[in-house]
Amino acid sequence: MKNAVGREIPQSIPGLNKIRPFQGAFAYQPTGRLAGPKTPVHVPGKEKLLKSLDQAIDATGLRDGMTISFHHHFRNGDYVMKMVMDAIARKGIKDLTITPSSLSAVQDCIIPYLEQGVITAIETTGIREQLGNLVSSGRLAKPAIIRTHGGRARAIESGETHIDVAFIGAPTCDTYGNINGVDGPSACGSLGYPMVDAAYADQVVAITDHLVPHPLYPISIPQTLVDFIVVVDKIGDPNGIATGSLRISNNPKELVISKYAAQVMEYSGYFQDNFSLQLGSGGASLSAAKFIKEKMHQQGIAASFGVGGITGVMVEMHEQGLIKKLIDVQTFDTPSIKSLKEHPLHVEISASFYANPHTRGPIVNNVDFVILSATEVDLDFNVNVLTGSNGKLMGAPGGHPDTAAGSKVAIIVLPLIRGRRPMIQDRVNTVVTPGETVDVIVTDYGVAVNPRRKDLLDHLRDSSLPIMEIEELQRIAYKMTGIPAPPPPTADEVVAVVEYRDGSIIDVIRKCK
Amino acid sequence: MKNAVGREIPQSIPGLNKIRPFQGAFAYQPTGRLAGPKTPVHVPGKEKLLKSLDQAIDATGLRDGMTISFHHHFRNGDYVMKMVMDAIARKGIKDLTITPSSLSAVQDCIIPYLEQGVITAIETTGIREQLGNLVSSGRLAKPAIIRTHGGRARAIESGETHIDVAFIGAPTCDTYGNINGVDGPSACGSLGYPMVDAAYADQVVAITDHLVPHPLYPISIPQTLVDFIVVVDKIGDPNGIATGSLRISNNPKELVISKYAAQVMEYSGYFQDNFSLQLGSGGASLSAAKFIKEKMHQQGIAASFGVGGITGVMVEMHEQGLIKKLIDVQTFDTPSIKSLKEHPLHVEISASFYANPHTRGPIVNNVDFVILSATEVDLDFNVNVLTGSNGKLMGAPGGHPDTAAGSKVAIIVLPLIRGRRPMIQDRVNTVVTPGETVDVIVTDYGVAVNPRRKDLLDHLRDSSLPIMEIEELQRIAYKMTGIPAPPPPTADEVVAVVEYRDGSIIDVIRKCK
Repeated sequence: MKNAVGREIPQSIPGLNKIRPFQGAFAYQPTGRLAGPKTPVHVPGKEKLLKSLDQAIDATGLRDGMTISFHHHFRNGDYVMKMVMDAIARKGIKDLTITPSSLSAVQDCIIPYLEQGVITAIETTGIREQLGNLVSSGRLAKPAIIRTHGGRARAIESGETHIDVAFIGAPTCDTYGNINGVDGPSACGSLGYPMVDAAYADQVVAITDHLVPHPLYPISIPQTLVDFIVVVDKIGDPNGIATGSLRISNNPKELVISKYAAQVMEYSGYFQDNFSLQLGSGGASLSAAKFIKEKMHQQGIAASFGVGGITGVMVEMHEQGLIKKLIDVQTFDTPSIKSLKEHPLHVEISASFYANPHTRGPIVNNVDFVILSATEVDLDFNVNVLTGSNGKLMGAPGGHPDTAAGSKVAIIVLPLIRGRRPMIQDRVNTVVTPGETVDVIVTDYGVAVNPRRKDLLDHLRDSSLPIMEIEELQRIAYKMTGIPAPPPPTADEVVAVVEYRDGSIIDVIRKCK
Repeated sequence: MKNAVGREIPQSIPGLNKIRPFQGAFAYQPTGRLAGPKTPVHVPGKEKLLKSLDQAIDATGLRDGMTISFHHHFRNGDYVMKMVMDAIARKGIKDLTITPSSLSAVQDCIIPYLEQGVITAIETTGIREQLGNLVSSGRLAKPAIIRTHGGRARAIESGETHIDVAFIGAPTCDTYGNINGVDGPSACGSLGYPMVDAAYADQVVAITDHLVPHPLYPISIPQTLVDFIVVVDKIGDPNGIATGSLRISNNPKELVISKYAAQVMEYSGYFQDNFSLQLGSGGASLSAAKFIKEKMHQQGIAASFGVGGITGVMVEMHEQGLIKKLIDVQTFDTPSIKSLKEHPLHVEISASFYANPHTRGPIVNNVDFVILSATEVDLDFNVNVLTGSNGKLMGAPGGHPDTAAGSKVAIIVLPLIRGRRPMIQDRVNTVVTPGETVDVIVTDYGVAVNPRRKDLLDHLRDSSLPIMEIEELQRIAYKMTGIPAPPPPTADEVVAVVEYRDGSIIDVIRKCK
């Protein structure tokens, strides 16, 4: 059967319980009730602090077939997943599902455990490098489930993903289990993702290299959710956790794109005092900030809030009074981590508050502008940020589909051509963000407005932007590159499903031949 | 059948589903899962702001037999319950259960709705005045359920109390439903109680007299939990919401008691740097602070945190560096409301974090000392804070049983004689806090240590305190008052049950003859 973005979705997929094809960004209106977390008890005086990770794993009763979770706030500096998986593997536990909030290159270290059957299923929001290749080649027993940040929170809160044990890397933890991410040698900033895991997991283990006296302040994850605490030497490598500051591009192509993106904002009809925005962490998105700042200064306006992954660029705008509040689910660089600790109006939120569609309204619903990058787009404005031109997993939906759906103006920035490949396809390899939620596509050669947004188009005609139909943009690209070769053939076997934020299947990824 | 404090608990009580007699403070270890909140959805752009309370009640689909909740942070200045009940009654809706976090004298205004059958059941943590009399005389269709603060959070989270609609008085609310209690003309400080209601109610209505642009900061109850917003003229009377500052007693009897209580702390063995404390809002408890401060200054120590209902006395100690952090479920007076807004280490918590026993450890588990008042105590160290000598409901368990159970040293302060009545009974009229969780009873004539706490007794012998057995204290009282008259006779009919924090029945209250 074909779903609402025209993708063929099998009626059943071995290893998955239910298949609900994508029917439109807001078509699915769930009823019923969320999961009920396990009823916990903790008698005063009982010690939560255990002697070792081994002891903690034993205390949780972890066994074959269970589901465990991790967070990715340590990015490429994460030591936690490896040390936990090593300890689990030593105990001979098998057939685990892991549901990390995302997977970075550093997590290639768990590949042996996939090969040995310690890990047989993965649910996550991003997968890259060798691990991406491995999953793409069908080496997992079950298809991977790729979710959005909001969709992962939804899956956990709805009970679709039931976490037996959450292992939470805790940059600072007090002796009764209160956790934050802003202090300690492995500070990572916001703990927005594991907030959700901690609230719903049957057992929660905090793993820290910075144990402090009770009570900690500030508290990101409270003692009422934490069962056990383990102290280890190091939970992460600060150099991998955060870069000094994310780069702003000097690439002339990116500068053109950034300038156009800023102009789209300016002329959209929504660029007024107290607008709100999210900037992705890509180069063009970040350098757009430079042009937006100029326009804000000129017009004497400030943003009510900036949300999302927070970067030094946004912190600087906050410090200059151009963004009144920073709302932070994930903190990308050292200046932002410092800001979250020091600035009272830089506040931490959970992934559910950020983007879960099955709440009374996540903050993405309040975003006016979001600037997002893309791997490729297509004539229906669908966006792929997950698979490469070789069909292999090498990216992350992250919050892309969430903010595109929530925001008033979702702007996709990408070069018209990368290498020798045109970036506007007839059909993207993998639909991650459906075209109905994408408003404007900005390239270095021109700007295409989604025909659904006639209002935007009318506004943008007042600008000097090179506005054209998306087919025209594609023709320009093809003139330079020729018609691209079709994507490599795949086998029938589904190796991963791409869940839209509401839990429906927006696309499937088949085994590379 | 008799429960663990020797009270006769009927095997069934008309109007109640389950009867589980109290078996000891930590005897009940629940298994299973907490309630799953309703799965909500809110599409971007949908308006939450409604035109009137009437429209909001219609929007929730409220109907006969449902359960609605309120919070009592406006204390005797609350306008919300009356305006909501008036609107509901006008619609002809009947047979509602109300589950306010507590009931103040001002709520006598709802008596007509009890008489008309609009309200047929009450679950709360305190009940007073005419409403107390009315319930005591058996005028409700079902027995009232009296809970502790932690027990109420537990009942809601476990699903024992299912809230169909939470009506939340919101001192400040933004246009998408984020709420706080520290700003606006009806600022009340912490919103610790309705935090729990909002997380579990099927529908949440915010009622505010101070609507502000999105996004609010700070946020106590997030937009992800709020369905509808209604703006009204006034949600409360500031003079009833908070007094200028709670009095510190000049009563010589209370001063003696306070001094003894401070000495108990000093010699307990727990009075050391980074101890933690809760002070009740009673006169003797508050004036104990004066003596504690002196001792802290003398010994050069500071408390790690003070928790509970926060008062100006604790704020002053915080400002002087004697209490490092204030952890606030309820803010009692104007200086404390100001402090919560201004002091970064004065932090707001939910009733569940405060005292819910069925979590991985509420903060009461971390309290070293709590000083609590009492209506009467008995030879088994049981405490009554709920019914008067006439057997009628006139008080509130509040957090009393919660902190007594959690803390290392629970100190009960009361005069040996009130009016002409001795305060140490053979058996208290109503057991609210079981003796096994009460460590020391301090009166103006002497101090009795619970024989279970031989460790404390050994320490306290080093002090100059007039330590004696509780029977001896009772004899001193009887010498002055004579043996008191027995409590007035009651009918068999149970008009209220007293739930211990774990949901078991610790006592029942029978109809006054």
